[in-house]
Amino acid sequence: MAAKMVANKKIVLKNYVTGSPTEADMEVVATATAPSKLLEGSAAGSILVKNLYLSCDPYMRGRMSRPCSYIDEFVLGEAMVGFGVSKVVDSSHPEFRAGDYVWGMTGWEEYSLIEDPKKFFPIRHPDLPLSYYTGLLGMAGLTAYVGFYDFCSPKAGERVFVSAAAGAVGQLVGQFAKLMGCYVVGSAGSDEKVNLLREKFGFDDAFNYKNEEDLNLALKRCFPDGIDIYFDNVGGATLDAALLNMRLRGRVAACGMISQMNLPEKLDPLHNLISVIPKRVRVEGFLVFDHFHRYAEFEETVAGYVREGKIAYVEDVVEGLERAPAALVGLFAGRNVGKQVVVVDREQ
Amino acid sequence: MAAKMVANKKIVLKNYVTGSPTEADMEVVATATAPSKLLEGSAAGSILVKNLYLSCDPYMRGRMSRPCSYIDEFVLGEAMVGFGVSKVVDSSHPEFRAGDYVWGMTGWEEYSLIEDPKKFFPIRHPDLPLSYYTGLLGMAGLTAYVGFYDFCSPKAGERVFVSAAAGAVGQLVGQFAKLMGCYVVGSAGSDEKVNLLREKFGFDDAFNYKNEEDLNLALKRCFPDGIDIYFDNVGGATLDAALLNMRLRGRVAACGMISQMNLPEKLDPLHNLISVIPKRVRVEGFLVFDHFHRYAEFEETVAGYVREGKIAYVEDVVEGLERAPAALVGLFAGRNVGKQVVVVDREQ
Repeated sequence: MAAKMVANKKIVLKNYVTGSPTEADMEVVATATAPSKLLEGSAAGSILVKNLYLSCDPYMRGRMSRPCSYIDEFVLGEAMVGFGVSKVVDSSHPEFRAGDYVWGMTGWEEYSLIEDPKKFFPIRHPDLPLSYYTGLLGMAGLTAYVGFYDFCSPKAGERVFVSAAAGAVGQLVGQFAKLMGCYVVGSAGSDEKVNLLREKFGFDDAFNYKNEEDLNLALKRCFPDGIDIYFDNVGGATLDAALLNMRLRGRVAACGMISQMNLPEKLDPLHNLISVIPKRVRVEGFLVFDHFHRYAEFEETVAGYVREGKIAYVEDVVEGLERAPAALVGLFAGRNVGKQVVVVDREQ
Repeated sequence: MAAKMVANKKIVLKNYVTGSPTEADMEVVATATAPSKLLEGSAAGSILVKNLYLSCDPYMRGRMSRPCSYIDEFVLGEAMVGFGVSKVVDSSHPEFRAGDYVWGMTGWEEYSLIEDPKKFFPIRHPDLPLSYYTGLLGMAGLTAYVGFYDFCSPKAGERVFVSAAAGAVGQLVGQFAKLMGCYVVGSAGSDEKVNLLREKFGFDDAFNYKNEEDLNLALKRCFPDGIDIYFDNVGGATLDAALLNMRLRGRVAACGMISQMNLPEKLDPLHNLISVIPKRVRVEGFLVFDHFHRYAEFEETVAGYVREGKIAYVEDVVEGLERAPAALVGLFAGRNVGKQVVVVDREQ
């Protein structure tokens, strides 16, 4: 007996993008349908999920252009994909059963048929807000965790600078650094975000980069003795200024360069990489995709921090799948305050 | 009784330099005198040395300008200083005696009074050419050794690119890489040097960067599958092209950026550092001055390689202290072929 079909709204990319994406590059397709149960003929081991929360992440910008450097570009006309929190509706996989909450790479649509559910993680702390698994307890959280603890080689008392510090990754890096006893300064693109860094996330200092005429001077003011660790989420002029202000044997974790993502042609020039020699600085790029084997350890650690009140977390939540394109465009324009989440359906 | 005085020619810097140094920035002062033995009143533990071979090294460019980033600038009107091989003439230090051969930071002059001889290394293989201790068995050799083995994390079979590959450091890095079983390509600034890389040092391939219109294409031709290790001696456009051609988890050892040393204002822009993220590349700066504790191990290893014929070594030798300024200027113009050495006095 064929499964009943249900409506399945989805977001598709209409065309590959040059420069800054706009909402017009995406489309809400409301006429698609999905099965209400696994179809006969679905690959053995598939699961059908209902998507609850979707994550807007900077790396998605790459997938909107062709070619993308380290991950496939989105397929035009098909549902976009991204990290999300989902509920299993039907399963032919022994490790998943209907009613389970999971997170992983899912479709920007109401229902998704997942043929390789091993890429999904079970949600072990469903009593915490499920949406946290789009960020704090998901990919962004793991990015902050391995980026800071593994790539920054941090020590208590060190001076840490974080850019895009109010974003999903930055707010966690700053708080991990504070928990370790570091001196932490963040940059962000609005006074509201700067206030959040100081008041909510406990950063020692913060500045609005848009109000600074000279980023080098801003960093010299915040770090008169220099920077031990720079966690770079933005690249460009901020990275160049940070390179100039590193201390001896400083470390730069190159996590993302969101300022460079929408530039139509050549990227902003850097002039100060040479300072890695006299300062003996290490610059290292990383992608969280290499580090999912650390996930279980990370999840327990950070869920513990949340329960103990050691970590604050701010989300910027929009309601409704149809608002996902605007939310994603806003992310690249820096309009979100905190982790950008799209609610498809609340299940809590 | 006061020690007899002898003539002591020396090279002094007349003025701090902007842009490319010229011979006119330095002066041979022939009227200075030195004691023939340690003066009464010399600090206890001093030694008096006769300088035999002087080393011209890229880092010296920094000391010709003010301020210099990681080492004091030369003092105008006093003898310039640099690494050299010397013979002890007189000593009040228990670990040095007249007749010993030593190498270390000495004056660009015929005789130098060294008040802190602990910075000097005894020459343990005086049967090898003494001049080798200005390069192969001295600072440049140790730079290549720690730079390659410690900072490049090399493995057999990896693809290694070395710039300024015919220079004192580059020729050794390439040969260390070949000894490890790597595929090695070098760049240099003349066909003569390129020939040397192929014929004398056993590089798998080499190119004259001055003959390449597009360094990115040159690297793609030499490394169709990308570069695992880039040992950077030059910075600038070569570094930028290398960043674009790194393989997954590649390593860049930032050893020096000689192409950037004589630029009067801003350094050449880099556009490709962002590729460290998708490629998970590590860029690390280092200075040999941190690694002299490895010297004894290095000296035995490399002296062994020389005796076994495993390492070839090419020096560019000029005769006479008065030719040292021209030799140093030539180094910054890339005129030397192999390690630039100045003979003050032959003792072999």
